Order: sequence, then C-alpha cells, then structure tokens
Amino acid sequence: MSKFYGIGAGPGDSSLLTIKAVETLKKLDIIYTPKAKKSRKSLALTIVEEYLKKDLEIKQRHFPMNFNIKEKNQIWDDIAQEIVDDVKKGKNVGFITLGDPMIYSTYEYLLTRIKNKVKVETIPGITSFTNIASNQNFPLVMDKETLVVVPCTTDEEKIDFVLQNYNSIVLMKVYKNFKTIIEKIKKYGLTKYSILVSNSSLNEEKVFRNIENVNSDQISYFSTILINKKQEIV
Amino acid sequence: MSKFYGIGAGPGDSSLLTIKAVETLKKLDIIYTPKAKKSRKSLALTIVEEYLKKDLEIKQRHFPMNFNIKEKNQIWDDIAQEIVDDVKKGKNVGFITLGDPMIYSTYEYLLTRIKNKVKVETIPGITSFTNIASNQNFPLVMDKETLVVVPCTTDEEKIDFVLQNYNSIVLMKVYKNFKTIIEKIKKYGLTKYSILVSNSSLNEEKVFRNIENVNSDQISYFSTILINKKQEIV
Repeated sequence: MSKFYGIGAGPGDSSLLTIKAVETLKKLDIIYTPKAKKSRKSLALTIVEEYLKKDLEIKQRHFPMNFNIKEKNQIWDDIAQEIVDDVKKGKNVGFITLGDPMIYSTYEYLLTRIKNKVKVETIPGITSFTNIASNQNFPLVMDKETLVVVPCTTDEEKIDFVLQNYNSIVLMKVYKNFKTIIEKIKKYGLTKYSILVSNSSLNEEKVFRNIENVNSDQISYFSTILINKKQEIV
Repeated sequence: MSKFYGIGAGPGDSSLLTIKAVETLKKLDIIYTPKAKKSRKSLALTIVEEYLKKDLEIKQRHFPMNFNIKEKNQIWDDIAQEIVDDVKKGKNVGFITLGDPMIYSTYEYLLTRIKNKVKVETIPGITSFTNIASNQNFPLVMDKETLVVVPCTTDEEKIDFVLQNYNSIVLMKVYKNFKTIIEKIKKYGLTKYSILVSNSSLNEEKVFRNIENVNSDQISYFSTILINKKQEIV
C-alpha cells in the first residue's frame, strides 16, 4: 500500500542515515524537495541520492520561508494536495528533511495537512546537535539534568533565563545575533563550558573550543553552541 | 589504528542503527556490555548482535547504578582502565548505549576517563524521544519554540516550571512518580496536548493518547510523555 514518508536524513553525512531510512528511500517513486537555489541540488537530496531508485521522479517545489502567513498556507496546501494525489495514485512519496523530521523541520507543515488523508510514516533522523556532541566527544546531559534546546531567534530574555538556570543547553541558529550571544555566554561565565560548531558534518565544518574571540564572519548560518556546565572544555 | 568506540544503538529497533554504527560494529574486536540480569542478554547487545564479528569477545561487566559515589567511581575507573589496556593492545573496543551516547548515557563515565588516554570515536544514535515523536507523527518543536527534555526524577518545582513556561516538552522517566506527573499535566490543562508511550520500539510498546485514566501498572519503567502545546491530540 502506498504511503507518504517523512524521512530524517540526519545532519549531512550519508553514513548517518539509519538502515530504515535507506530501506525507505529505495521504495520511493517520487520525492519532493525544495527548489534549489542557483542550480545547486538541495543538501537533503545530496545526502540521500545514492539510495534512490534510478527512475525516481524528483519534484522540486518552492517551499515558502518569509512570505505572509496566508500566502504561505496556500502554498503548503497546494503541495500537500499534490502529494495526497500522488499517494492516491499508488505512488510511494517521500519528503526528506535534514536532521529529524519532528525537530524544527518544515515537514510539520506537510504532516499536519496530510496525515488524515493518506497513510503517513515518519522515520526519525540524527539531529544536528547530538551529532555535534558525538563528534566533539562532548556529553550533553546526564542524570537528573534538564536538556534545553533554544533557537536564538527567540526573545533575548528567554535566552538569558536558560543560560542562568539550566545545566545542559543547545543554542541553535546563533548566527544572526552572534555577538549578543557570545556576550551573554561571557557574562554568565560559561565560555569554558561552551563549544561552537559551524557547518557540522559538512565539508567546511569548523570547531571553536575557545569561543571568546570568534567573529561572526568566521561562522556560517548553520552554527550551534553546546553548553554543559559540568563539562569543562580542555 | 585501534580505537575506543562509543556507539549509539538507537531506541531498540535494529533498523534504527545508522550505517556508520553498523560499519563500526563490524570492526570491533571486543565489546563491553552491562552484566545481564537473570541470564538475559542486555537490550543494547540484542539490537546490535547481527552486525558483530563472529569471533568478537563480549566482556560483561557490572555497571554500578545505586552504589555510593566512591565505590561507583572505583568501578568505572577499573572498567575504563581495562578498556584502555585493550585498545593499547591493538583491539578495537566498543561500548554500546541505547539511544544516543551523549544524552543520558552511562557512556559519559567511560568517555571522561578514557578520552585523553587512547583515541575515542563516538557515533550518535536516534534518541528515544525523537523516535516516539516520529512513530506517533507528532511534531515536537517548531520555529522559535524551545524544546525542554526533563527527567521526572528531578525536583517537582522544576517540572512545574517547565510545564507552565515552555511549549515543547519531553518528560522522561515518568514511571516513578507517575501519578504526580499526570496530576500536574491535568492541572495545567495539558492532557489534550500529551502523548504517553511505554516501551517505545520494543515488542510491548503501548501508546496512550488519552492519558487521564492511565494507571502506573499499565506502563513500564521505560515510559515517556511528549507535550506540544500547539499539537492537539485527536
């Protein structure tokens, strides 16, 4: 029976796909991906392409990011309807997301529109922050500690609260207000417990174990800071 | 060159191992696992065993849980030393953890003792909570929301604070004070945004989409509640 599959592609390295993801990729008839910029393939597609059927159909669609809400909803409605139609025609349809489909992924926009219409199966993926932690041999959270994952696009006071009150912290999307974030980390005496990684698991990955003197022009849009107040960086 | 490998085995289903984990398992000469209770194999070993070398040596060791700190440290020191000796003899040594090695895993006790003595490589794994979210087609966190993962063995006031102040919440280890946790979820009006899963990805997995009337005798020690205040359970 045909299905819509949401597949977590992990952080960028094809070997971090799960066996289940690979088995699922091999079954797909159609894959939806974001329309590539400047004739480059999408990163998600690059990760999975060695496992795709030769005659797979790739449907590149424009996924809205900064549109107004009404326009955005209309575009997602249209893509969701197209996927539902494909599945009803007996096709196995896939949507590939970086990292995990349930953690900060646009897959949600499709899932909520599709899940009551056709059969949907979601395959988890390795998240970027657990991959960074493993690559750096950096234990993120233990025992009774709480783990807090904060996108730094949120309100500053929320970031301050988390930095002051929790032990194990992942700061995502630190690029935009990078200087402010570094100042906060210094202010709360956390520089020695912080690792900054730019472009995790891509070719240009950079790791900064001394974050105090890093400038925003040294890092990419995909940059993350891990903090564990019980793990001093040496 | 020989190494110590910490390998995330994921939540229980062998197909949720990554390709990298499988490739690494095939290289191992020795594996350390917790001493099995009642002559059963450890769950982590069951997940990975189809990928192990035929002549692999399995070293079952007693991993301390409830000892006093001094005794506990001594036991971990001894196991770490044994692993270091094995690696120095040219063996590839593996330690398998459920879920991800950097998220609530005893692997930390070995890693911190070993990483400056021999080469260590850590392979991430699918965490139980992202797997539950995918299995249930339940988006955990989106956009600017913070994701908070709380072991319910922590102080009650911390659990209260998280339930009141964050959108996306994973409550781990809910078994011990289950009744209290359910009361809190009711008190804050969150029952309709909560899913409870017992024994995720094991044979006896149970899912409760209406948590109000669940008793602790219906669930196992491995039970988790996912909450997303923007995802009403239907």
